Amino acid sequence: MIKAGIIGATGYAGGELVRLLLAHKNVEIKWYGSKSYVDQKYADLYRNMFELVQESCMEDNIEALAGQVDVIFTATPQGYLSSLLTETILRQVKIIDLSADYRIKDPSVYEAWYHIHHESPQFLEEAVYGLCEINRARIKTARLIANPGCYTTCSILTAYPLVKEGIIDPDSLIIDAKSGVSGAGRGAKVANLFCEVNENSKAYGVAVHRHTPEIEEQLGYAAGKEIKISFTPHLVPMNRGILVTAYASMRSAYTQEEIKEVYDSYYAKETFVRVLDQGVCPETRWVEGSNYTDIGFQVDERTGRIVMMGALDNLVKGAAGQAVQNMNLLFGERESEGLALVPVFP
Amino acid sequence: MIKAGIIGATGYAGGELVRLLLAHKNVEIKWYGSKSYVDQKYADLYRNMFELVQESCMEDNIEALAGQVDVIFTATPQGYLSSLLTETILRQVKIIDLSADYRIKDPSVYEAWYHIHHESPQFLEEAVYGLCEINRARIKTARLIANPGCYTTCSILTAYPLVKEGIIDPDSLIIDAKSGVSGAGRGAKVANLFCEVNENSKAYGVAVHRHTPEIEEQLGYAAGKEIKISFTPHLVPMNRGILVTAYASMRSAYTQEEIKEVYDSYYAKETFVRVLDQGVCPETRWVEGSNYTDIGFQVDERTGRIVMMGALDNLVKGAAGQAVQNMNLLFGERESEGLALVPVFP
Amino acid sequence: MIKAGIIGATGYAGGELVRLLLAHKNVEIKWYGSKSYVDQKYADLYRNMFELVQESCMEDNIEALAGQVDVIFTATPQGYLSSLLTETILRQVKIIDLSADYRIKDPSVYEAWYHIHHESPQFLEEAVYGLCEINRARIKTARLIANPGCYTTCSILTAYPLVKEGIIDPDSLIIDAKSGVSGAGRGAKVANLFCEVNENSKAYGVAVHRHTPEIEEQLGYAAGKEIKISFTPHLVPMNRGILVTAYASMRSAYTQEEIKEVYDSYYAKETFVRVLDQGVCPETRWVEGSNYTDIGFQVDERTGRIVMMGALDNLVKGAAGQAVQNMNLLFGERESEGLALVPVFP
Amino acid sequence: MIKAGIIGATGYAGGELVRLLLAHKNVEIKWYGSKSYVDQKYADLYRNMFELVQESCMEDNIEALAGQVDVIFTATPQGYLSSLLTETILRQVKIIDLSADYRIKDPSVYEAWYHIHHESPQFLEEAVYGLCEINRARIKTARLIANPGCYTTCSILTAYPLVKEGIIDPDSLIIDAKSGVSGAGRGAKVANLFCEVNENSKAYGVAVHRHTPEIEEQLGYAAGKEIKISFTPHLVPMNRGILVTAYASMRSAYTQEEIKEVYDSYYAKETFVRVLDQGVCPETRWVEGSNYTDIGFQVDERTGRIVMMGALDNLVKGAAGQAVQNMNLLFGERESEGLALVPVFP
Repeated sequence: MIKAGIIGATGYAGGELVRLLLAHKNVEIKWYGSKSYVDQKYADLYRNMFELVQESCMEDNIEALAGQVDVIFTATPQGYLSSLLTETILRQVKIIDLSADYRIKDPSVYEAWYHIHHESPQFLEEAVYGLCEINRARIKTARLIANPGCYTTCSILTAYPLVKEGIIDPDSLIIDAKSGVSGAGRGAKVANLFCEVNENSKAYGVAVHRHTPEIEEQLGYAAGKEIKISFTPHLVPMNRGILVTAYASMRSAYTQEEIKEVYDSYYAKETFVRVLDQGVCPETRWVEGSNYTDIGFQVDERTGRIVMMGALDNLVKGAAGQAVQNMNLLFGERESEGLALVPVFP
Repeated sequence: MIKAGIIGATGYAGGELVRLLLAHKNVEIKWYGSKSYVDQKYADLYRNMFELVQESCMEDNIEALAGQVDVIFTATPQGYLSSLLTETILRQVKIIDLSADYRIKDPSVYEAWYHIHHESPQFLEEAVYGLCEINRARIKTARLIANPGCYTTCSILTAYPLVKEGIIDPDSLIIDAKSGVSGAGRGAKVANLFCEVNENSKAYGVAVHRHTPEIEEQLGYAAGKEIKISFTPHLVPMNRGILVTAYASMRSAYTQEEIKEVYDSYYAKETFVRVLDQGVCPETRWVEGSNYTDIGFQVDERTGRIVMMGALDNLVKGAAGQAVQNMNLLFGERESEGLALVPVFP
Repeated sequence: MIKAGIIGATGYAGGELVRLLLAHKNVEIKWYGSKSYVDQKYADLYRNMFELVQESCMEDNIEALAGQVDVIFTATPQGYLSSLLTETILRQVKIIDLSADYRIKDPSVYEAWYHIHHESPQFLEEAVYGLCEINRARIKTARLIANPGCYTTCSILTAYPLVKEGIIDPDSLIIDAKSGVSGAGRGAKVANLFCEVNENSKAYGVAVHRHTPEIEEQLGYAAGKEIKISFTPHLVPMNRGILVTAYASMRSAYTQEEIKEVYDSYYAKETFVRVLDQGVCPETRWVEGSNYTDIGFQVDERTGRIVMMGALDNLVKGAAGQAVQNMNLLFGERESEGLALVPVFP
Repeated sequence: MIKAGIIGATGYAGGELVRLLLAHKNVEIKWYGSKSYVDQKYADLYRNMFELVQESCMEDNIEALAGQVDVIFTATPQGYLSSLLTETILRQVKIIDLSADYRIKDPSVYEAWYHIHHESPQFLEEAVYGLCEINRARIKTARLIANPGCYTTCSILTAYPLVKEGIIDPDSLIIDAKSGVSGAGRGAKVANLFCEVNENSKAYGVAVHRHTPEIEEQLGYAAGKEIKISFTPHLVPMNRGILVTAYASMRSAYTQEEIKEVYDSYYAKETFVRVLDQGVCPETRWVEGSNYTDIGFQVDERTGRIVMMGALDNLVKGAAGQAVQNMNLLFGERESEGLALVPVFP
């Protein structure tokens, strides 16, 4: 049994981790960490866990935890892990960090977008960006996994093959993303009240959203050069789901069939990426509750552009599911163990 | 492996059956029956199943199916199964009927509420009402299971112990139920369009809803006499979930503690009924996607009444999940096999 | 022009008051009072008012305000007005209180349900309960209006004629109410976040909700005696709307036609109460954005009960619209001035 | 009094026209036309109109209607009006067509995108594209108004000043639009059922949506040349609202202030276009129920692009409200008569 501890178990991503790990046959959750709810019964905060989780919340104490478990998931605000991580901790335990602290290799870029001083840049080099479909081999031997963001996972998986193959001009890439509200977390904010969000759609963080440099870095590796993209996140009234619509200029004329072949060559063997049939657009409902990313596309001969589309569940493939997938790779489990979740519809 | 066939696989309850059976380790779905979509790929109708189900829809042909499978689920309109069922079929295969055809013992009551002539009343006597928590023993040996309705399951489980123990006057029982929209099915009707349902709540079928006699019959067995209740269903804007609020006069003064003990004595050992802590009201979100029924209550000393509350997912415990639970009992599987679903929140 | 001041202009009821008063041809809003947002532009808090309201929020200072306006609306928490109201204020200005402070005549009842000491009980006697359809004459000459609650308005208007005429046994009355989320206010609470409310229904405040004694008092006047009822509020995922389903035993057998005549005799001339055609159930969408209360009913011969149903928009007829209706009566305006709002659908 | 007839009064746009015209002080609706509901009471189809509209639906007979009213609104499918319109009709009555039949000057373009043969191209030249803010003068003297589409109105108003002033390269324009579900109409389709749309976001009609050439034509006039754009519509789970996010390359470096000045120079005097303060993104909730279009933008120096954003209510400024605005211009009414609607929030 893999012994797991969760720091930040009471946010939505933490809650989803609990849901997934409870159903994983080789994992035992040993620590439900919380900053705000110490000593409260976890199932009083997430009553879906009533009779399933008996434990109470414990302090977010990573040092204490490191000696007791095999893997720590940190579902914490940016800056938390980077301010506490030490070599001593990393020698004892694998860490899968759901925050952004180790996703960006250049600490000055991190600091420019997050406005936080990075306190442990010495681990940036060894941290592995935990997008399993792309970095599988390196993940298996890592000590520290930077679990990708929700917008980022969807954006990168959607555009990656066409960037990598040089089919699109990466500097023409415009990513328009729509997200459900759980991505905003369980904090009590007026902006996320039901009445503020329901019957509403809006863009936010235009031109300054923090997931932008993460996408640029990863797709830049694929392009073999630094790139700059436009990324605009939107909030739409649903609990879960991210839909990415990405636009780019094609470097020459391609047919639908040719593009489909490229996608298939990258993803046909991937369990958790489904390249849809031609003409089918991904929809968030078809992946809800599951670890899938669904991908579709449309060549537009009139404009010489291609429209790429991706959909995933921000709490699963965009957070907790990907973290479990990383854990499976780290511990030699079957990659899909605990993740064979049929999407829930309706 | 249990070989299963589904007649009416393309409705919402049928789709949920597929979701659950795909995750059941000892079941193989052999037949995706459909009236309207014969020869279409099932995954084109339920794209959540893309890459998970390769089969196309087949005719709704119960006779052909009976010889090929071990169990048939009929998720069909009222009157379908009763017009086709024969002794020949029942000798070959177990049947779990999600329609109302065999739920009511007296065909004249069925005909009065459903306005359909019952064409095979000879099977009414042997049909077992498939509410596992109450009829477990009889289910195990049945050939024909009348799988309860969604409103009914929630109403009966919520009130049953207090009726059975004589704590409430069953003729004072008033059940006010709120349902998500998936209970209305996947048919194309203006009344169920998004814009008609969103931002709306309404009662319907007041005093004439067909689940009324089903509740009366089952709670009548518990009361040891015929009873008459008020039952009012409502539609509220959510996909899944039924919430029942039931009111009744107590026959004498009871404390919260005493009532809690009664509920616990019935349900403490039940996997799929969770009696909540005192003062906690059930909420549909805490059971969504799972086979649980959550139950709470409040004694009101001022009025001498008790308010009983129950919540379940209408597509799981209210339909497909209960059907799988019945199947597990019929075939000697562990009762919770394939149903260890942690509720999905948010 | 009637000069109006609003204390508590930044809550949802306050915002709705602004919306309605802006469209009232004889009113000028002079004061946008706020506790939390003093000196902030009102239209920065309610961007629907962009270019329509230039003013900034001012302090919630009732004494300063009393000398400057003709009417003050207090859309404030319970206990606010009762702790500040003086004879000096009342001599200068009419007050329409949207809180509960003056709704209940007996201060000990108020204190028992609200757990607040009432600091100005000397005004309880003269305060007029502002349910226009019932207390119209007395409202016209009042100084202090206790504007009814949202659940209360819907419950009373729905049951009043049948209680008043002795058709139902008032002690058998059970009111099951469903509310949209705006009734919970604009405060930042986890419980009202989109992800907590969406896809969820729940009861709350069972047997202890504060609107209970208000309904009992007003229907008690109609019954000519003290009564006790059961009242259960529920939260359903919509912005606006209250739906009341009320159950009571009929004192003798009545037909649908007889009941319809009774309702019509009370409401046929009322602009803002619409008694629906027989067999039609009220739905919240048909009144959204308007000052209407829609009423329907169903006699149930089987049980000897009647099911009464009412629907209104909690922010309009359940709060701000009713306040404007009261203001119109107080100042000799046409009762429907500023309230000729066609419900918005979809 | 302007006598108005509506052909297609029972769709959502028709229903919204009725709502607006009922509140217009100088209009009388003489004809509630319907194809499917002839002789049914209009208020039985739109119960929000109960007690407000007594009339029943009449045939969709444009010839009979032409002699009886001053203006006809056609809220009908594409191809309806173009197959029936005659000079005789146009001599009797003004026509405001909410369909696409006369929006595109070149019938071959219309036919290519709509797959409908245009049967009265002789009226294309004189038809005036009814985007009041741009074509005000020509609208006043027209006989036939081509009322713009919902996506189109939002897209054009958002991009127009920057195209007209040559600030952006129009061929770099990418428009990503998100729409509520009422834009899909009141027809009974599985795809628009509550359970299919709720908790879902999707693109559709990628690269082939019919509003594309309409946007290209109108913005082409502004650019002074033919242009080609990318336009992708999306469906998000809300009743009303369109949000447009538009991306384009700037021809040189502009500051936020410079762009704001350009927008203000076009729209500061426009009642129904609100240019938001810098840094504020439009949200659909702030315009719901009103005739406003809210516009915001963000210069992105990193990429040399500008992100333009617009929001409107698809049934008001995107359909019925714009039609009323056109009617006001046609008949010399104050342009905002009947349209002084404060947006409804929440």
